[in-house]
Amino acid sequence: MADRIRIAADAMGGDHAPEQIVKGVVDAVNSRKDVSVILVGRQKGIEACLQNLSYPEGTIRIVDAPDVIATADHPVEAIRHKKDSSMVRALQLVKNGEADAFISAGNSGAVVVGGQGIIGRIRGVQRPPFASLIPTKRGSMLLLDCGANVDARPEHLAQWAKLGTIYMQSVMKLEHPKVGIVNIGAEEEKGNSLVKETFPLLKEMDERGEITFTGSCEAREIPFGTCDIAVCDGFTGNIVIKMYEGTGQMLLSEMKKAFLSDMRSKLGALMIKNSLKTALARFDTEQYGGAPVLGLKSLVVKMHGSAKAGEVKRAIEQCVEFYHEEIAAKITAYIENNRL
Amino acid sequence: MADRIRIAADAMGGDHAPEQIVKGVVDAVNSRKDVSVILVGRQKGIEACLQNLSYPEGTIRIVDAPDVIATADHPVEAIRHKKDSSMVRALQLVKNGEADAFISAGNSGAVVVGGQGIIGRIRGVQRPPFASLIPTKRGSMLLLDCGANVDARPEHLAQWAKLGTIYMQSVMKLEHPKVGIVNIGAEEEKGNSLVKETFPLLKEMDERGEITFTGSCEAREIPFGTCDIAVCDGFTGNIVIKMYEGTGQMLLSEMKKAFLSDMRSKLGALMIKNSLKTALARFDTEQYGGAPVLGLKSLVVKMHGSAKAGEVKRAIEQCVEFYHEEIAAKITAYIENNRL
Repeated sequence: MADRIRIAADAMGGDHAPEQIVKGVVDAVNSRKDVSVILVGRQKGIEACLQNLSYPEGTIRIVDAPDVIATADHPVEAIRHKKDSSMVRALQLVKNGEADAFISAGNSGAVVVGGQGIIGRIRGVQRPPFASLIPTKRGSMLLLDCGANVDARPEHLAQWAKLGTIYMQSVMKLEHPKVGIVNIGAEEEKGNSLVKETFPLLKEMDERGEITFTGSCEAREIPFGTCDIAVCDGFTGNIVIKMYEGTGQMLLSEMKKAFLSDMRSKLGALMIKNSLKTALARFDTEQYGGAPVLGLKSLVVKMHGSAKAGEVKRAIEQCVEFYHEEIAAKITAYIENNRL
Repeated sequence: MADRIRIAADAMGGDHAPEQIVKGVVDAVNSRKDVSVILVGRQKGIEACLQNLSYPEGTIRIVDAPDVIATADHPVEAIRHKKDSSMVRALQLVKNGEADAFISAGNSGAVVVGGQGIIGRIRGVQRPPFASLIPTKRGSMLLLDCGANVDARPEHLAQWAKLGTIYMQSVMKLEHPKVGIVNIGAEEEKGNSLVKETFPLLKEMDERGEITFTGSCEAREIPFGTCDIAVCDGFTGNIVIKMYEGTGQMLLSEMKKAFLSDMRSKLGALMIKNSLKTALARFDTEQYGGAPVLGLKSLVVKMHGSAKAGEVKRAIEQCVEFYHEEIAAKITAYIENNRL
């Protein structure tokens, strides 16, 4: 097992825990030979889910954790006081070197607080962001921060631009990923004070060759994917993601209603079903695994609260990629070289 | 002509000016008897557009303005120095009592600055917001601010909640419109510092019976229309609107591609075309006229830069409604009663 990457999975976090978490984990260890998983949570519940599922011996083990951090729990309080929770125990496995990465579909705030408090930030990283790969018309775009830091300062956004660049170079193999700043207009003088103060910092980084800055990324353009990385404060980033998902869900539900409105439409819908499915599959958030918290000593990936097995499997694959690409080491090297 | 509401229209603002502005104006005066329009802009260009169009005598007149405020112009500078622009001249017609309302598809910042500087705020209104009626699954929702104030304070959002309530009671005839605050989670402790500081103010207003506050309105829920009024700073509001429009446009373009991908899909698409068109018509932004700047002494409506005749006609109808409902007088009365 020595050369397998070891993932500590929070089996209790998310709307479909533990069933779908366990199922995704089993799918992952069945489909690739370079990964093993520690399922952390209520042992009996996890064992019940594992019944009737088969997987290579030794690729999954369970660590019992009787407590659970709920979505409504206060992140700092929960991490501090729920020492026997699946999340805290799983994070400690990473801290102690028993696991290489941590995944959870649970309380986002607790994932950030626990990641920073238990695993720890890379020295010099100020505010680790959630970085989410979102599907666009042209491919995908890394949006950061997506919610870890709802009030951010210009120097945070500047650092995220570099963390995002390292990520996209390593994971998506883009040599010079284009960085934009999420904005409400194309011109430099548009935007709120945070955007206006961040703009010159990003221009300087571009001049120093640290990033490729392409200016404002208008919210309207995000679904079309006009840049590779978009930086913003965590409040804005979360609004962007939620509007993207909500609008898509609402339009699809209206379309479905239209498809069923009369016999002619029902027939037509049957005929276009396949091509429509193919076209829209790319926009299924499940395809994208989760949002890594960048800038921690080990990888932490937050999945959607609604994550099912497919997303869990993807998140595990993401961890493997992240590990092989030594992204934490690259971030450390950048920060040392630039004395950030 | 005395009992017609007189609209001053900026004939030169927007991507399709002056043709589509003029066309929308002609449609409006042809379809209703209670409105007349002053088209302000380059006289010759406007006259050329009016050729071959017919309308009741005396319902349209032209005021020449040789200069134009461009989209890229700095709002404050433009309003101050371009005295002969269509926008400044049209706003002055309202100020001088020659017109009752102003509409423009031009530079948003200049509309706000000009509206405040030339027409003037109602005494006690701190920061007039853009209020945009956006289509949702359940009907429509008033989102404010949509971009007039990109950096806002809690007391601004609180005042907008009341302005929005007056608007929705008057125009949409909702007795107790539900007010939400745009947020990234349902719980009160979620959000950035602006949201957290605004929350208690809105709760107090609810307790005093001034508004009906229903708490957080998650961005994901906006397309579904879970409240009637959503307040936020102008940066966030603009991001919400642009993401809504951008996501819709992108998904529709992907669907169209799917519909044309093979013969079977093409046939199917023909069969569902009508019901799909009906279902999506409601989400056409053109149906919604424009965004009024609330809290000015007279009505100012900003249309999309891309506005065509249909939106212009709607914006004019909106002005009539606003005028009949005496919204400015209602806002004045509220502020006097509450010594805001």
